[in-house]
Amino acid sequence: MIDIAIIGAGPAGLSAAINGVIRNKKVKVFGNPPSTSYIYKAERVDNYIGMLGVNGKDMMNEFVNHAKEMGVPIQIGKVIEIFPMGDYYMLNVENEFIEARTVILANGFSKGTVLEGENEFLGKGVSYCATCDGPLYRGKTVAVIGDSDYAEEDANYLSEVCEKVYYIPQYKDIKSLNANVEVLEGKPKKILGETVVERIQLNQSDLEVSGVFIIKQNIPSAKLLQGLEMENKAVKVNKFMETNMKGIYAAGDCTGRPYQVAKAIGEGNVAALQAVNYLHSFKK
Amino acid sequence: MIDIAIIGAGPAGLSAAINGVIRNKKVKVFGNPPSTSYIYKAERVDNYIGMLGVNGKDMMNEFVNHAKEMGVPIQIGKVIEIFPMGDYYMLNVENEFIEARTVILANGFSKGTVLEGENEFLGKGVSYCATCDGPLYRGKTVAVIGDSDYAEEDANYLSEVCEKVYYIPQYKDIKSLNANVEVLEGKPKKILGETVVERIQLNQSDLEVSGVFIIKQNIPSAKLLQGLEMENKAVKVNKFMETNMKGIYAAGDCTGRPYQVAKAIGEGNVAALQAVNYLHSFKK
Repeated sequence: MIDIAIIGAGPAGLSAAINGVIRNKKVKVFGNPPSTSYIYKAERVDNYIGMLGVNGKDMMNEFVNHAKEMGVPIQIGKVIEIFPMGDYYMLNVENEFIEARTVILANGFSKGTVLEGENEFLGKGVSYCATCDGPLYRGKTVAVIGDSDYAEEDANYLSEVCEKVYYIPQYKDIKSLNANVEVLEGKPKKILGETVVERIQLNQSDLEVSGVFIIKQNIPSAKLLQGLEMENKAVKVNKFMETNMKGIYAAGDCTGRPYQVAKAIGEGNVAALQAVNYLHSFKK
Repeated sequence: MIDIAIIGAGPAGLSAAINGVIRNKKVKVFGNPPSTSYIYKAERVDNYIGMLGVNGKDMMNEFVNHAKEMGVPIQIGKVIEIFPMGDYYMLNVENEFIEARTVILANGFSKGTVLEGENEFLGKGVSYCATCDGPLYRGKTVAVIGDSDYAEEDANYLSEVCEKVYYIPQYKDIKSLNANVEVLEGKPKKILGETVVERIQLNQSDLEVSGVFIIKQNIPSAKLLQGLEMENKAVKVNKFMETNMKGIYAAGDCTGRPYQVAKAIGEGNVAALQAVNYLHSFKK
């Protein structure tokens, strides 16, 4: 059992991780590759004190190195859902199941709006994870909605198992898609069907599909964990970064504005120390 | 008129300052010399991400350099009191009066308990500032209670104007006191008098004095600013580092546990950006 599972490998997550390790806790970070962090693309950051005039890429590399030097294990992988199990939590990391006593949500800001039909058909044709659910669509037709080029890998994988893959990018500049993936312009409007997904409606067309994969860089926190209290689309936290659920903390952009490196790092620090306090209450 | 006056030149204050400057605000930091910051004495800090294995002194120097490189003016001086003036504030900085539209309290954690008689005789023989009130005690006898060697300078100054100075250190290892300052061991118990200070009671003795100077590295926030709401001896803030008073923000150790560099820096960042938002509301 992990003491502190950290969802997100950006500044908040890595700051939380080093603070957990320093307090001798078994910590593990799950996240996208560091290069997908927003901050990675920043040309110059001047307002994280101690690192004047650094670019985002060097900054993230420095953070990752710091964490690695301190022995923080970082697993590249997407946490799909978190299940409360009484006094611990179970994480579904692309269908690998991992137990953790506490969880720090540092999964960033999710810009995604919810599509009409998305909640209704979740698990009935709508999926957030190609690795998990791809095999269910062997020989079928699916649509993939991607919010960053990170989703192209999922579309490519699906193109190997499905009969047909439509790719509907919600960003510019496609990087690398298999030739048999069909790219469609436009915004998805609605997911339709009787009891399972049958169609997806775009601006100007209607596609017959058996599955819709919505691949977001960050799964919205409220989707990750049922019962998590939100406030203005952010995870609601108190000053100790506690959420409404015991053993669940949040830090960084997922707790709301301002979206800043220093804020994220401070919150990661506080969340980890609070998780450590909570862990000690089990040892008594 | 300063846009953002920052009380405290530690990690929280300097982080706030660079964020104010980056947003083109007129910022000024008032504080003790950086070497008096708690963090300055830390042997090794590993949990501020991006600066692995640094000692406290190097860390503080790095922070100060960063701030100076960005043009942050730092004035060494003690803010004695802050007065609300409607839509701005007036700061008493050792009897220099400075106007500021907003104030960020980053004055650290004050360990001081209040002495019996301290509040009662404040302004009637009890003073927090030798530079301000020293001249009133020309030719008289005073006691100085110091919580760090920073107070020795005040005792030395008073020894030049007063008839007699007793020094009652609440720390070990005196650094440099004038020969005519008499050092007394023990804890002060009580300040006594009819309408003004006449005596101070120590563990085992009673001294006749006209003035008692209580020189703390940090003046408690609630003393700095009448009407400021506190909670568990810390300044009460919301997630945007707003206090109960308009235009007054707080960051770092003065807002409570955990006492951590990363937390302080994150809070300084948030407080400054919130002050900037508030300042913009005046321009409309």
